[in-house]
Amino acid sequence: MDNNPAMIPKPTLKLLRSLQQKKFRDQHGLFVVEGEKMVLELIDAGERMETKILIATAEWLKEHGNSFGTGIRVIESSMHDISKGSHLVTPQPVLALVKIPDEKDPSPVQGSGMALGFEAIRDPGNLGTVIRTADWFGIGEIVCSKDSVDQYNPKVVQATMGSLFRVRVRYVDLKQQLESWSGLGKPVYGTFLEGENIYEIPIEQSPLVLFGNESKGLSSELTPYVRRKITVPSFGSSKAESLNLASSVAVICAEIRRRGSMPLIQSGN
Amino acid sequence: MDNNPAMIPKPTLKLLRSLQQKKFRDQHGLFVVEGEKMVLELIDAGERMETKILIATAEWLKEHGNSFGTGIRVIESSMHDISKGSHLVTPQPVLALVKIPDEKDPSPVQGSGMALGFEAIRDPGNLGTVIRTADWFGIGEIVCSKDSVDQYNPKVVQATMGSLFRVRVRYVDLKQQLESWSGLGKPVYGTFLEGENIYEIPIEQSPLVLFGNESKGLSSELTPYVRRKITVPSFGSSKAESLNLASSVAVICAEIRRRGSMPLIQSGN
Repeated sequence: MDNNPAMIPKPTLKLLRSLQQKKFRDQHGLFVVEGEKMVLELIDAGERMETKILIATAEWLKEHGNSFGTGIRVIESSMHDISKGSHLVTPQPVLALVKIPDEKDPSPVQGSGMALGFEAIRDPGNLGTVIRTADWFGIGEIVCSKDSVDQYNPKVVQATMGSLFRVRVRYVDLKQQLESWSGLGKPVYGTFLEGENIYEIPIEQSPLVLFGNESKGLSSELTPYVRRKITVPSFGSSKAESLNLASSVAVICAEIRRRGSMPLIQSGN
Repeated sequence: MDNNPAMIPKPTLKLLRSLQQKKFRDQHGLFVVEGEKMVLELIDAGERMETKILIATAEWLKEHGNSFGTGIRVIESSMHDISKGSHLVTPQPVLALVKIPDEKDPSPVQGSGMALGFEAIRDPGNLGTVIRTADWFGIGEIVCSKDSVDQYNPKVVQATMGSLFRVRVRYVDLKQQLESWSGLGKPVYGTFLEGENIYEIPIEQSPLVLFGNESKGLSSELTPYVRRKITVPSFGSSKAESLNLASSVAVICAEIRRRGSMPLIQSGN
């Protein structure tokens, strides 16, 4: 506990606020996790996620005891002070500063398991939702091109609802990654508005499914690595231009998992 | 054109800014549509959407001519002034003030066609995405409980990507609506975490699918009207608590449309 129980020390507040920006997250190797649900998931996540500082109100700390493990600096603070450092519209009584995991092991992906790839995904809500969707459908691997939004952006973290602690997201040279995957024989599907109806074609298990930027789609640079172009069909005379990216990811993941679980119905695949 | 071509008149700027709040949208009967894509969709939408004021830069107006129909007040403005009134993080060179459609005809729903119902949907991004998804899957009708986020909230409008101009969203007493639909024999499905796997049960065509609040789910008040509880199954040993609401809507709509288009594969339904 700090000496003054109702205040966040000024340097800590300054640090906390700075972590809204990627530059400072990179510099300090830290990101922010806010809210009770998220912090409890964080504590559950175990070793991969190392909490450095936990800031909470006296009430919150009283209710949740001191079961935060050793090595965590706990700062008791008023809601007023938490609000000053919070990235949320409606601040909550607890937040944590967490070490960005040092993924030393970008092990050459085995080609086993289903994976998702994103080129220039830009909307933080989309990336966060996609990480949550991957978690729901048991997909442990996401790769993003380097110009994608950062997974530790506060809006991304919030939208994952804790799934960020379970799904590995790597920022890679997508072209190089695709070359290596193609070499390993991993089937690569790419989503295009003019792609084939996913319900009318066979889809191999354990594919990589590639999604393009929210407004531009997949670039011609990556197209040569796509084995098959797919799409989620619209219905009737819909005038909608496209589905939201995260919604499209959910539909495609659900369909691939449905087929995997129901080989008798889709015996042709 | 106004006298000073580079400025938005002060009262107009004040009006524009006030429309971020529901109270003032209701008072003036107006909402804001921002960005080139959205404004072009708006012009396409025809009679249902009545544009009152269009504000754009000289460059934008030069490029798009005067094909905005009669009765629209066109104000030429600098980007600087547009930025002062914009609700966007990255303002665009055009925006419009549009009359909220006067839906005089809340015609008793015929019980035909698929519909979506939402209880206390709160996140503007979710509602906007859901409207876009409904448009994609040819679902013309959405009903929301009265404590849901307003469809003319700027963040909702933006997330619909123009689908707001094609999908009808009504705010109703959900309980009463469900009573009337049940009386008409319309099948009502409700989404619950503990519901039946959607891939393992028959689903009638043209249902109403009911979704609960983002954190609380469906209330016990509405449960009696649900014919069958359904869920999107997770995969493997997923520890994720739930799917994002808009993602869950997309998966369920896609699956119902898939079955409707493929009667031979799902002949049991």
